[in-house]
Amino acid sequence: MVLNPVTGAFLDGLRATLPETCFRPIAPRYLSEPRGFYAGQAGCLLLPSSAGEVALILRHCNAARVGVVPYGGGTGLVGGQVMPKGAPAPVVLSLERLDSIEKPDLQDNTLVVGAGAILADVQAVAAAAARLFPLSLASEGSCRIGGNLASNAGGVQVLRYGNARALCLGLEAVLPEGRIWQGLKRLRKDNTGYDLRDLLIGSEGTLGVITRAVLRLFPQPEQHLTAFLQIRDPRAAIDLLARCQARFGGLVSAFELIDRTGFEFLQETLPSLRRPFAAPGKWMVLLEIGAGTDFPAQTVLESVLEAAFDAGLMHDAVIAQSEAQREAFWAVRERIPEANRLIGAISSHDISVPLGQLPEMIRKGAGVVARFGDLRVNCFGHVGDGNLHYNVYPPKGAHRADFSHLRDDIKRAIHDLVDTLGGSFSAEHGIGRLKRDDLSRYGDPAKLAAMRAIKTALDPNGIMNPGVIFAPS
Amino acid sequence: MVLNPVTGAFLDGLRATLPETCFRPIAPRYLSEPRGFYAGQAGCLLLPSSAGEVALILRHCNAARVGVVPYGGGTGLVGGQVMPKGAPAPVVLSLERLDSIEKPDLQDNTLVVGAGAILADVQAVAAAAARLFPLSLASEGSCRIGGNLASNAGGVQVLRYGNARALCLGLEAVLPEGRIWQGLKRLRKDNTGYDLRDLLIGSEGTLGVITRAVLRLFPQPEQHLTAFLQIRDPRAAIDLLARCQARFGGLVSAFELIDRTGFEFLQETLPSLRRPFAAPGKWMVLLEIGAGTDFPAQTVLESVLEAAFDAGLMHDAVIAQSEAQREAFWAVRERIPEANRLIGAISSHDISVPLGQLPEMIRKGAGVVARFGDLRVNCFGHVGDGNLHYNVYPPKGAHRADFSHLRDDIKRAIHDLVDTLGGSFSAEHGIGRLKRDDLSRYGDPAKLAAMRAIKTALDPNGIMNPGVIFAPS
Repeated sequence: MVLNPVTGAFLDGLRATLPETCFRPIAPRYLSEPRGFYAGQAGCLLLPSSAGEVALILRHCNAARVGVVPYGGGTGLVGGQVMPKGAPAPVVLSLERLDSIEKPDLQDNTLVVGAGAILADVQAVAAAAARLFPLSLASEGSCRIGGNLASNAGGVQVLRYGNARALCLGLEAVLPEGRIWQGLKRLRKDNTGYDLRDLLIGSEGTLGVITRAVLRLFPQPEQHLTAFLQIRDPRAAIDLLARCQARFGGLVSAFELIDRTGFEFLQETLPSLRRPFAAPGKWMVLLEIGAGTDFPAQTVLESVLEAAFDAGLMHDAVIAQSEAQREAFWAVRERIPEANRLIGAISSHDISVPLGQLPEMIRKGAGVVARFGDLRVNCFGHVGDGNLHYNVYPPKGAHRADFSHLRDDIKRAIHDLVDTLGGSFSAEHGIGRLKRDDLSRYGDPAKLAAMRAIKTALDPNGIMNPGVIFAPS
Repeated sequence: MVLNPVTGAFLDGLRATLPETCFRPIAPRYLSEPRGFYAGQAGCLLLPSSAGEVALILRHCNAARVGVVPYGGGTGLVGGQVMPKGAPAPVVLSLERLDSIEKPDLQDNTLVVGAGAILADVQAVAAAAARLFPLSLASEGSCRIGGNLASNAGGVQVLRYGNARALCLGLEAVLPEGRIWQGLKRLRKDNTGYDLRDLLIGSEGTLGVITRAVLRLFPQPEQHLTAFLQIRDPRAAIDLLARCQARFGGLVSAFELIDRTGFEFLQETLPSLRRPFAAPGKWMVLLEIGAGTDFPAQTVLESVLEAAFDAGLMHDAVIAQSEAQREAFWAVRERIPEANRLIGAISSHDISVPLGQLPEMIRKGAGVVARFGDLRVNCFGHVGDGNLHYNVYPPKGAHRADFSHLRDDIKRAIHDLVDTLGGSFSAEHGIGRLKRDDLSRYGDPAKLAAMRAIKTALDPNGIMNPGVIFAPS
């Protein structure tokens, strides 16, 4: 399928059918992505305000064989939101004007939002109605729901509430040939045909454009119990998580593993940030329980921790005694990615492994990295999900540019290890343009063939986000 | 696509590649289904013992253009498991020999099972390892995991744990052209391409054959609190559920609405069954909380019920004081379907509506049914999921055969109502052969077109469960 670039005649045709408000000169932010791996290009920027306008655009692009790059908050980490130079100039389709957030339905515990709604705004609308929308991640102040769904975003509360896929009941979406799927159902059970919703979620804009969604809300836990622990080693983290889950049922909402290297990076780059331990050990856990006030959560947690202390699983713990202290604990976790960026990774990996393999991953990963020299590893993540952000850095004082020739080999070695452990080379971030080669290398051939068949069936002209997931043809 | 019947030459070809143990004369049970709507036919019965053998069979069927009907426990309620006479005689492919259940992985909380494993056996293996596999439904003694996944089964604990789709982490499956997808991942987060797992789950054997699955396990709640309530009306049930969820967090595992008609049917057909109320009111709720022993569950429940009593939401409650009493409560709920069968419905409906619309559904539904005469409605179901089994019966003493001419019109009228309320005409049971016409009538046209495109892409010869979901071509 050879695509055409946006031309004057193409734009004239669009102007004849779309309101003038859909057109805006393209600004640099639409052509860049957070890690600076890709510089984008575009033939035009379109900002539709309804599914009907999106449908008009896709029909027009289909007729002209022009590529479409859907654009949400621009925070994706795999280059799914930019079309690199070299390909025919595409339409960049920003969903930012589709930013409505309806009134929460408190009986259904649902909330209907436009794809352009910013995640933090959605959280705030839910909170104002005494409800929780649990999707929570570092970029929540600027990422948009459409992008969260297109990439099946994860974050810190997946352990209890699931990923973006589990938080969405229904979708309105425009399919590649311009048909609108009215799938804004708010049902907990609906077995009427193939699961198109879950197919579009996580398809990274290659199978259509999500325009609205019905999201699930939850009761706000009346109390939060947040603790920072110093633990023996990663295996102790798994044991401790199991103990917490057994005593707290499904009420453990976060269980984050943090490496001392993370603390050192914070000290180095953000020295004014308060840290819970003066002399941190090698491994820490930040855990949070959300419960009703009837639950004697602090007493139970103290008893779990006492038993864990006696069993040698941990040697120190601080339980937040105020909301301010809770926020300070979370600030440590949430600013580690910023510290990481300031240090500058040689190679970053967003991996998951079966929970029981997590200690093995950390142990063997250290061996793999050591083969490349005296490098530093900062590995932190969501223990309950088996998800580690496993990042490799130059020695202290050195600059990553001097090690960039190692990036591909390090990445390959880490991903090979993950693969032998039955894991995933992309737990949260998706494939985009960055991990296409990993997908062909590690993906199951039968699944890849089925994916290609589905892509061709739904997008026969290949206009949707060309070059994402599949190599451009 | 015109399919061919199984012939002697076709069978000779199969015998040359498959072990003799895969062949067995077909018994009547493979050709019937629980409601007796369809009488099946088959060209042969095959019982493969591995994904490799399934792949051989599908390749052979593809080459000869012979249809394949996958067969699990045979308990499906929409005729998905039988090929009615008139069509070319198909292969019936029973997964019963693929019934392995591995040792539970207690760190991952996962369990790998073959598609032929019986649900109750899976539950038992989990329980023996002090874990819970929460899928629970009336036919659990004979339904098989492959069928549960193919139909995305629901049941009584969806409220807390989700449906079959939410309980499965990975699949091994044979795609229609005979490729084996090795997707037995046991990962909580894995964003590497399209969600083929959730597409196959719920596709009712039309997109391939599931051969193995990785299931999620949960900690066993240390205590169960089970109560039978007499409530004011269906709206009170919704209010009460919200109060329970606010106080118990995510620990409410079942919340079943029961109509007095259900009690009357039990009295009529199974008079020896113990019932919790001598003089039941019109509406009852059976609720269950599963919690750790640290949670003062009984005290909290008593306080919730006291407040609900004061608010006029309910007027009587019995909390089970022993495991025997808990089982007796559940026996009432679980034997209602049996009583229903003994009475004999004119028309049964497995519907869901948005939670807030449930009272409206019940109120307007009564009006719809009254138009057809003095009929009885037994409506019971899973309040938290907005899912009602809404069944219509002849007047006491009359026989359903005398009313069968009304079936189609009643069904249409009820489904029309459900549709105007934003609901689903098949919450749990799927489409099969029984609800194909409903799907074309109520389904979204863009979704239907996408489904057809996916079906053609993955099964170009249309051999997989022909006539299920889509009309035979």
